[in-house]
Amino acid sequence: MSSLRTRNNRVVALCGGVGGAKLAYGLARILRSDLTVIVNTGDDFEHLGLMISPDIDTVIYTLGRRADRERGWGRTGESWRFMEALDELGGETWFRLGDLDLAMHVLRTRDRQAGRSLTAITTEIAERFGIAATILPVSDHPVRTIVETPDGDLPFQRYFVEQRCIPRVTGVRLECAANTDTTAQVRRAFGAPGLRGVVICPSNPYLSIDPILAVPGMLALLKVTMVPIVAVSPIIGGAAVKGPTTKIMKELELPATQHSIFQHYAGLIDGLVIDEADRAERGLTGVAVKVTRTLMEDEVDREQLAHDVLQFIDEIAGEAKAP
Amino acid sequence: MSSLRTRNNRVVALCGGVGGAKLAYGLARILRSDLTVIVNTGDDFEHLGLMISPDIDTVIYTLGRRADRERGWGRTGESWRFMEALDELGGETWFRLGDLDLAMHVLRTRDRQAGRSLTAITTEIAERFGIAATILPVSDHPVRTIVETPDGDLPFQRYFVEQRCIPRVTGVRLECAANTDTTAQVRRAFGAPGLRGVVICPSNPYLSIDPILAVPGMLALLKVTMVPIVAVSPIIGGAAVKGPTTKIMKELELPATQHSIFQHYAGLIDGLVIDEADRAERGLTGVAVKVTRTLMEDEVDREQLAHDVLQFIDEIAGEAKAP
Repeated sequence: MSSLRTRNNRVVALCGGVGGAKLAYGLARILRSDLTVIVNTGDDFEHLGLMISPDIDTVIYTLGRRADRERGWGRTGESWRFMEALDELGGETWFRLGDLDLAMHVLRTRDRQAGRSLTAITTEIAERFGIAATILPVSDHPVRTIVETPDGDLPFQRYFVEQRCIPRVTGVRLECAANTDTTAQVRRAFGAPGLRGVVICPSNPYLSIDPILAVPGMLALLKVTMVPIVAVSPIIGGAAVKGPTTKIMKELELPATQHSIFQHYAGLIDGLVIDEADRAERGLTGVAVKVTRTLMEDEVDREQLAHDVLQFIDEIAGEAKAP
Repeated sequence: MSSLRTRNNRVVALCGGVGGAKLAYGLARILRSDLTVIVNTGDDFEHLGLMISPDIDTVIYTLGRRADRERGWGRTGESWRFMEALDELGGETWFRLGDLDLAMHVLRTRDRQAGRSLTAITTEIAERFGIAATILPVSDHPVRTIVETPDGDLPFQRYFVEQRCIPRVTGVRLECAANTDTTAQVRRAFGAPGLRGVVICPSNPYLSIDPILAVPGMLALLKVTMVPIVAVSPIIGGAAVKGPTTKIMKELELPATQHSIFQHYAGLIDGLVIDEADRAERGLTGVAVKVTRTLMEDEVDREQLAHDVLQFIDEIAGEAKAP
């Protein structure tokens, strides 16, 4: 098993925003260039003429050690002079763009308008920030997460930021053009030799992971892979660490339990990592379950959870090979 | 004469950047909504995907009391966090964009891309800043000042900012499309009733005023107007207060004298305002000359010079009416 692990060390992680990025950070600490993070782009939107990719930026800032930990989003040491001047000019201020963060959006918008792909731009920025892992948008085609509410559809950022997740969610869907596809780089991450496992990070399953899975071609990549796919549950003791996961579960009439998370990913995953607080739920049938601390309060937590997840992957791989 | 002045109080000023904007400020203090400032757009350029109109911004910041006086350009209280982050990302930093200033560029770019005219955008921003005067780009068509040097053509900002006016100027020309024209608002400023006079501000004649005059239709507006046209010389005692005016004059083999400025505007102006330091040059033939303090070190200077210029206009108008 150990020699196998030496050869097969590449891991693919599917990731949304803040919570998922924390685990991606832990994985990156251990795996370095053997990690590929495939990031949700359903949150992407155009605002003030700028092309903004919130989840990609969160992953870049987190892995590049530039994420703000107290605020929970955006860059550390951020300032807000641009927003002050924008407000004075009567511009829209519901989506806060920091002075440092703006550099990312301005450069990306320029490069996109010059015809460069989001993948190429993301790769270059990650390199600039000294990130050894590969960060990939799930698609270079524009895809848009739409949140369905009783009062009609809301583009993701309108729901998430402007309306602070207050509207009741009746459904979530991904809008994409007919020719939308995963990228060659995403397909290569699954297809190239040395793959050890796939991790679904503890991002919001409905708002962050489902949009990744909804990109045409993505589910097929997961279905055909021979390596273990494990998800880390975003639920701890019936609540989410951050964000509207359990609020949405309630609105969708799903109990905020590990069983609901398992059912959501059923048929796709080989293992589910749940928190110690939910030890009583460990007896899920049809999937391997790992009980560990999933709350990531500091860097040690992130790396420990990443370590546990990798061990879990190897355990599942080992069992599959057992007679 | 006084009753006439009550009716005819509207003034049109042609203006480039910093030096011209100071006089425009003085004129605006006296004339309020009776002032129309027609601004050079030959400096405009696209940078990092943003549409930047440096002279319009200088006039807006100056008249809106937001201009930085020590630095001599941009906004007061400006910060440079965006530039720091841009530098970290490997973006171009030769043109400095302040965090506050950026709000202007981002909003203008979005509005231009949405099809709004530079005139409409400029009017709205000026109103936002509480500016009673009307600020107008000379044209809504893109025009570009090209600086000719022995090593080839340079777009204006490359010459002015990136290369800090170091290359030798052999000529200056305005590039514009075949259908380029002044705007309806510019034509109305000349054509509507109540015009008292036209002021050519003490901007660089070659780099800032000539591009305004080179816009098709602009010279014709000046030629047919019945009111006095007076220029305020940017030269004081053989030097310019700021910028490369006298350097360019030398390169174009023009003595840095009031006579050279007069000859430059000959046939166009009815009067030239020169500084006390150049009193010896007051005997220019073929044009009325006003000798006064043209250096504007503070707000009092700006308003006093504006007052002198308006008085000069009225003197010329009175003489023209004399038998």
